[in-house]
Amino acid sequence: MNEPVVVRNVEQPPFEVVAALEKCGVTTVHEAQGRCGLLACYMRPVFSGSTIAGSAVTVSLPPGDNLMIHVAVEVCHAGNILVVAPTSPCAHGYFGELLATSLRAHGVKGLVIDAGCRDTRALTEMRFPVWSRAISSQGTVKGTLGSVNVPVVCAGALVEAGDVIVADDDGVVVVRRAVAREVAATAEQRVRKENATRERLARGELGLDIYSLRKKITELGLKYI
Amino acid sequence: MNEPVVVRNVEQPPFEVVAALEKCGVTTVHEAQGRCGLLACYMRPVFSGSTIAGSAVTVSLPPGDNLMIHVAVEVCHAGNILVVAPTSPCAHGYFGELLATSLRAHGVKGLVIDAGCRDTRALTEMRFPVWSRAISSQGTVKGTLGSVNVPVVCAGALVEAGDVIVADDDGVVVVRRAVAREVAATAEQRVRKENATRERLARGELGLDIYSLRKKITELGLKYI
Amino acid sequence: MNEPVVVRNVEQPPFEVVAALEKCGVTTVHEAQGRCGLLACYMRPVFSGSTIAGSAVTVSLPPGDNLMIHVAVEVCHAGNILVVAPTSPCAHGYFGELLATSLRAHGVKGLVIDAGCRDTRALTEMRFPVWSRAISSQGTVKGTLGSVNVPVVCAGALVEAGDVIVADDDGVVVVRRAVAREVAATAEQRVRKENATRERLARGELGLDIYSLRKKITELGLKYI
Amino acid sequence: MNEPVVVRNVEQPPFEVVAALEKCGVTTVHEAQGRCGLLACYMRPVFSGSTIAGSAVTVSLPPGDNLMIHVAVEVCHAGNILVVAPTSPCAHGYFGELLATSLRAHGVKGLVIDAGCRDTRALTEMRFPVWSRAISSQGTVKGTLGSVNVPVVCAGALVEAGDVIVADDDGVVVVRRAVAREVAATAEQRVRKENATRERLARGELGLDIYSLRKKITELGLKYI
Amino acid sequence: MNEPVVVRNVEQPPFEVVAALEKCGVTTVHEAQGRCGLLACYMRPVFSGSTIAGSAVTVSLPPGDNLMIHVAVEVCHAGNILVVAPTSPCAHGYFGELLATSLRAHGVKGLVIDAGCRDTRALTEMRFPVWSRAISSQGTVKGTLGSVNVPVVCAGALVEAGDVIVADDDGVVVVRRAVAREVAATAEQRVRKENATRERLARGELGLDIYSLRKKITELGLKYI
Amino acid sequence: MNEPVVVRNVEQPPFEVVAALEKCGVTTVHEAQGRCGLLACYMRPVFSGSTIAGSAVTVSLPPGDNLMIHVAVEVCHAGNILVVAPTSPCAHGYFGELLATSLRAHGVKGLVIDAGCRDTRALTEMRFPVWSRAISSQGTVKGTLGSVNVPVVCAGALVEAGDVIVADDDGVVVVRRAVAREVAATAEQRVRKENATRERLARGELGLDIYSLRKKITELGLKYI
Repeated sequence: MNEPVVVRNVEQPPFEVVAALEKCGVTTVHEAQGRCGLLACYMRPVFSGSTIAGSAVTVSLPPGDNLMIHVAVEVCHAGNILVVAPTSPCAHGYFGELLATSLRAHGVKGLVIDAGCRDTRALTEMRFPVWSRAISSQGTVKGTLGSVNVPVVCAGALVEAGDVIVADDDGVVVVRRAVAREVAATAEQRVRKENATRERLARGELGLDIYSLRKKITELGLKYI
Repeated sequence: MNEPVVVRNVEQPPFEVVAALEKCGVTTVHEAQGRCGLLACYMRPVFSGSTIAGSAVTVSLPPGDNLMIHVAVEVCHAGNILVVAPTSPCAHGYFGELLATSLRAHGVKGLVIDAGCRDTRALTEMRFPVWSRAISSQGTVKGTLGSVNVPVVCAGALVEAGDVIVADDDGVVVVRRAVAREVAATAEQRVRKENATRERLARGELGLDIYSLRKKITELGLKYI
Repeated sequence: MNEPVVVRNVEQPPFEVVAALEKCGVTTVHEAQGRCGLLACYMRPVFSGSTIAGSAVTVSLPPGDNLMIHVAVEVCHAGNILVVAPTSPCAHGYFGELLATSLRAHGVKGLVIDAGCRDTRALTEMRFPVWSRAISSQGTVKGTLGSVNVPVVCAGALVEAGDVIVADDDGVVVVRRAVAREVAATAEQRVRKENATRERLARGELGLDIYSLRKKITELGLKYI
Repeated sequence: MNEPVVVRNVEQPPFEVVAALEKCGVTTVHEAQGRCGLLACYMRPVFSGSTIAGSAVTVSLPPGDNLMIHVAVEVCHAGNILVVAPTSPCAHGYFGELLATSLRAHGVKGLVIDAGCRDTRALTEMRFPVWSRAISSQGTVKGTLGSVNVPVVCAGALVEAGDVIVADDDGVVVVRRAVAREVAATAEQRVRKENATRERLARGELGLDIYSLRKKITELGLKYI
Repeated sequence: MNEPVVVRNVEQPPFEVVAALEKCGVTTVHEAQGRCGLLACYMRPVFSGSTIAGSAVTVSLPPGDNLMIHVAVEVCHAGNILVVAPTSPCAHGYFGELLATSLRAHGVKGLVIDAGCRDTRALTEMRFPVWSRAISSQGTVKGTLGSVNVPVVCAGALVEAGDVIVADDDGVVVVRRAVAREVAATAEQRVRKENATRERLARGELGLDIYSLRKKITELGLKYI
Repeated sequence: MNEPVVVRNVEQPPFEVVAALEKCGVTTVHEAQGRCGLLACYMRPVFSGSTIAGSAVTVSLPPGDNLMIHVAVEVCHAGNILVVAPTSPCAHGYFGELLATSLRAHGVKGLVIDAGCRDTRALTEMRFPVWSRAISSQGTVKGTLGSVNVPVVCAGALVEAGDVIVADDDGVVVVRRAVAREVAATAEQRVRKENATRERLARGELGLDIYSLRKKITELGLKYI
């Protein structure tokens, strides 16, 4: 049970859907899919200012051992995002500049890892985006197998290979491949609506009026004194 | 008991007192008022480099519900700082770009929230300063009442409407309105004294001599070997 | 027992060894000395982008009292790094702009403190690098003795006076003086090897091939499906 | 500003009101007063199985200094609960067996301290109930003043002298003296209602029916499959 | 997407398999299935000394709202364990004595909840076992839907309805229904082997000899001095 | 550098000194040696009510690998306490019932481990005392060397082989072998003094009078109102 496997062929989400989700960003996508799929908020970007979306290549690996990241590189495609989850909590620096160089050479857009990363200055300079739970120079060995492209729980969220990952300064969200198109459409609609609302708010209109909340607060019994 | 209320008229601290406190910054103000009023140090700025001071508009609201922030906007004045405290611990993203747009349109200088915020990239780009305990895309609903301008406990400190909030990269401190003028005077004095000390230290003089500590360490029995 | 002392004369590590370690950075040095000496990863830089190395001046002091930092300044030499450890956990802001000015005037390169610091904006502007466990305006008094240049446990690592401290965006590592030359040589070798590997990875070669891992994963029983 | 004071005369809540609140326990009292006044849930009992209620004697004191607890003993009355809050976060062991012996000799029922305590085995054997945020042998000094019976923020809740504290295995709640009688009445009513509900649930009736939730879940759109 | 549903019919694991897993306990079961399925170690029992195993009824619900626990009771069967996971982090006390009474009346053996619980003294007295991440009197409302018997991520582990939950003082582990029989057999074998080992160790034999580790440590280069 | 070694012969502290320290307990010993040597307060006993003291056998080992604990058993003597510190943070369950059986067969009194332990129910039933930072079923492998009886940093404190460890419900403290006799004498004196003070406090005398604090608080300017 739980034999180590690498699943080679993963159905990819449509390119234009991924592009649309990337444009909307984490918070809007999270709302658009009914407030689910958010990774724990301890996942923080190594440097700020990046927004990426891509199809997940998942890696399940043991604590303190990054052999399977090397295995995963070979099955990555351009546009993928690597999602790495240790089988038990571990803040070691699994990932650094050399692996980032390798992933970039294969077109991978970024890394989401529920563990530590290192070489943060180099990662920042080369603008390879990483979301991690810790920064740690404490390295790993290359001695034990895990699996690639099996379902993983990463920072509290279930991620399957081919799901869409969206990550930015607000955090990381996963969108099931099956609903990605629908979520992207809802998210884009939401962006349009928010643009209109923003203009009204910038003019000084109140949310109380825009969202028709005055009747509600009166019914609930709010008193002004 | 604890009926939801909005207090409309709050006595404001004098403008020049707020300006003086803003100029001195959190650490100096905190020292000047006898080391009290500091919010818990888990309160961090979304982006660094801002120093603001202003009169507090306080919001007490339930976990996961930001209806009362919308209510509060209407009673804010130019120069205010919004201070938001959930009635039980909650890291949800109560606040984002749209509410920031609305607050800015009403002249509010910034937000201090003992909960989560989101849209951090947009907040950074529009330079709307926020101090929060977490960053999270996890949104809130608009279904339950709370109160505006009642006393709240925010990140461990008691804040009353009309108190002066000072916030910068070091954290957040609250100054009671009744003592704000006196604290500002002490803080300004402290700044002048520190300027003099800084020059002496920069020339290589030792704190041991400047603060007359040599006699003390001898009496306490320090040995050099 | 535990009488407060200041040890004046500390054997210093060779200048060229410190320079070599600084050039290699924390992660490489940590690997080169066999993965030991890393301080806990809660130690974070106040601003990013600095890499420093230097001989440690250690300070053991009580919670909430920074008198001994003032004492330590006098025995610091150009090129030193101050390493401060309270005798019990304390997140107070022991250190700010004035002490940084004083340390800089005596040639000290930076501070590593297993406690809080403050005046972070000023520290950033003057580019005085500090690694701390917290940022807090909560100040300290000057009333109790401790010791300078005795062995301390800082963020979980034993540091002795004259050990080499290396600190950058990845964290902080301590290298025993006795092995510093040997560690520097190993680290430099490692950098050369990594440069070669980086080029190969950038061309798209796989870690699986560069590190000869294919045989191993086959023996361990990895299945591709 | 913030001069150290001891307020001697504090209006006490009626004895029978305190007794009623003690009988109801923390969770019921917290609900009965509209879900407010709960201290942070990091406040845990040193030993389990105690429920106490009493009028608060508050102590505001500096980090690492328990002089003011000794001062407070003198103004305590039989039936009081001591509520201790440091002016900045501190997990030192402010309190142990000797102070417990002293408080008991003056009729004090227990201690609520937003810091550390020690001598936990002795406290358990003498059954002196303590709720604290930490257990630590790290002691304190007796060198600095604070205040007794001024308003304090303890574990995130505002407590004023003469407020009623209720503490049990679920945590600690504060009830304002002014509303204590009303809250006690509501709490007792709630207990009676819960007793009736418990009997129905024990017979196998469903909460869905007892609380008339079926209509609601249908309207909200719940599907059974 | 993510419509609230209640799945009524869940295939149950065989009774004798559940009984065997319960007898082996969490640590042995976790080892027997290849070290996977462990919930995060912040999940602690309200009282110690219980070991339970049962088929999971899963509940996915919003933060601060326990309506769906009431819905779930109706679809529970004797021998089930309720597994509750909020859709975002929340330490509220979702569960107390009344719900425990209701679950017991329907034969449910215990609760595993990635949130808070309350009424801990009553739960201890009635010996209804609960594993939770927090204890908090902070209650919940009954206003929003979630789902029952859908896959949930609870304390970092994926749990599906009908999986076997084993919980004791060491923590909580989930065993997929499909492999439960196989895991139980391996676990029982492991218990027999451990019994034999225990006797040898109790007689003073060394693990170095029992597990044949002497050759390995020599090859790895361990020196005795 | 850092070659794995086992140091066989360790000078032991005198038996009667260890016995005296055990009788005094952690808090008194910590005070008696000038408030140093305390391990971090996250170190908690698996079950309460034990007080042990003994000479330390130290183990430095890698994360997730307990091979060296098996190695250490062979060099333990009756009356020792095993002190285990991973070289990087790790909460795995390194230790359980089988190793406890082995240690007990060799006369070891207990374990202090800056990592996780498991089989807590069995440990409680056999009354083998363990202080750990976590409880976790997550096991370890037996594949990598470390060292025995070298200096380690355990939970923030430096421990050398042959130092005296004292552990009880208040935590864990280490006493250097060289000063153990002196510390024991001071601790016993302290106990006698506390016994006298306890009697006076139990009769209702105030700490203010016993410790002669009245003059001090008057000088410091305390006001009674």
